[in-house]
Amino acid sequence: MSDLKLYTAGTPNGYKISIFLELLGLKYDVQRIDIRSNEQKQEWFLELNPNGRIPTLVDNSTGVTISQTGAILQYLADTYDKDHKFSYKFGTKEYYKQLEYLIFSVAEQGPITGQLSHFTKSAPEKIPYALNRYSTDVKRIIGVFELILSRNKEGLFLVGNHLTITDISVFGWANSLPRLNIDIKEFELFSKWFDSVKALEPVQKGLTVPN
Amino acid sequence: MSDLKLYTAGTPNGYKISIFLELLGLKYDVQRIDIRSNEQKQEWFLELNPNGRIPTLVDNSTGVTISQTGAILQYLADTYDKDHKFSYKFGTKEYYKQLEYLIFSVAEQGPITGQLSHFTKSAPEKIPYALNRYSTDVKRIIGVFELILSRNKEGLFLVGNHLTITDISVFGWANSLPRLNIDIKEFELFSKWFDSVKALEPVQKGLTVPN
Repeated sequence: MSDLKLYTAGTPNGYKISIFLELLGLKYDVQRIDIRSNEQKQEWFLELNPNGRIPTLVDNSTGVTISQTGAILQYLADTYDKDHKFSYKFGTKEYYKQLEYLIFSVAEQGPITGQLSHFTKSAPEKIPYALNRYSTDVKRIIGVFELILSRNKEGLFLVGNHLTITDISVFGWANSLPRLNIDIKEFELFSKWFDSVKALEPVQKGLTVPN
Repeated sequence: MSDLKLYTAGTPNGYKISIFLELLGLKYDVQRIDIRSNEQKQEWFLELNPNGRIPTLVDNSTGVTISQTGAILQYLADTYDKDHKFSYKFGTKEYYKQLEYLIFSVAEQGPITGQLSHFTKSAPEKIPYALNRYSTDVKRIIGVFELILSRNKEGLFLVGNHLTITDISVFGWANSLPRLNIDIKEFELFSKWFDSVKALEPVQKGLTVPN
C-alpha cells in the first residue's frame, strides 16, 4: 500500500493528476469512483471533498487531503518536485506565470470546455445559442494559449524551458476537444505543443487510469 | 506614484483585488479599464494579460505582472502578508485548504455564477434550460460553502480562525447574488459569514474601486 491514494475517474480532470503522478514516478493507489451512479456525492466521499467531485488525493505521509486539480497539482509539485523538473521555485517570476496560467486553465479552459461538453453531449435538447457561445469561447481560449506559446522564446512550453504542472493542466482538457468537434489544427503552435505532450510515455500511462 | 498598479473595473473579480489591497493597507494606483468598449482586448493590455481580462496587477517593486484573481490574491499574500493576517504559511495543512477552496471559488463559483449572470442579464433570449442549470448549480455551490463553514469549529471563516484570501475570493461573487435573484438567506451560516465580511470597513472601501 502506498502513502498516496487517488480517488478518480476517467475524465479530463482525473487524467491531469494520474499523468502528473506518472511523470513524478510516484507509487500511488487508485480507487475508481463511479460518477455515473454519483458515488462522489455519497457521505463518505463528502468527508474527503465537500464539493463531491473527483479527483481527490489523500497523502498519508503528510496528512493532507486535497481536491481541485489546480490545488492538487501545486501540492504535488511543492511536495514531490523539489528539484523543479515540472515546476518553478516558489516566489520566482516563473512561479507566478505558472500559477497565473494554471489558474487560467482551471478557471476558464476547464469550466468553459465543460459547458461545451454538457451542451454537446449531455443536454436533453440542442440549444444553438449555448453551443455557439461555448464553442466560440473554447476557440478564444485556445487562441490565448497560442499567443502564450508564441511569446515564449525558451521552448514549446507554456512557461519557461520545460514542462510544468500548467502544461499538464491544459493538456487534460485539450485532450477532450476531438470529441467536442473542435479542431485544434488551425492553432499551429498549440497543435505541436499538444502532440509533444501526448507523446510522452508517462502521459500515455496516466491516460489509462483508472484502468 | 505607487509601485503597485491595478488595472480594474467595477466587477466581482475586480473587487476581490481592491478589497485585499485595502485590507493589506497598501498604497496602489488604479487605472479604470472600460470593459464596455472592450479596452481590455486592446494590444497594449494584451501585453500585460494575454487573456484580455481585468483585473491585472503590475508590481514594479518585484517586476511581477499578474492576472487571474486566484493568482493575484496568492501573490499579494506571499509578498505582502508576511505575518499571515490574511493567509496561512506556505506548506501547512491550512495553506492547502486555503488553496483548495480558493481554487474551488475561481474554478466553480466564479465561472458558474458568471454563466448565470450572462443568461439572466446579457443573453438576447431567455433560455429556461440554461437559467435553471446555472441557478441550480449556484445554489449547490453555496451549499458546499455552507458545509465547509459548518465543519470549521474555529470560527466563521472558510479556513481556520481568521479571514483569508479564500474568504475574499468567495465574497467577490457572493456579493453579486442579489442581482441574480439568488436569496442566500436560506443558507444560515453563509448569510452570517457574508454579512460579517461585508461589514468590514476595508471591504466597503474596496467595493468603491475604481471610483
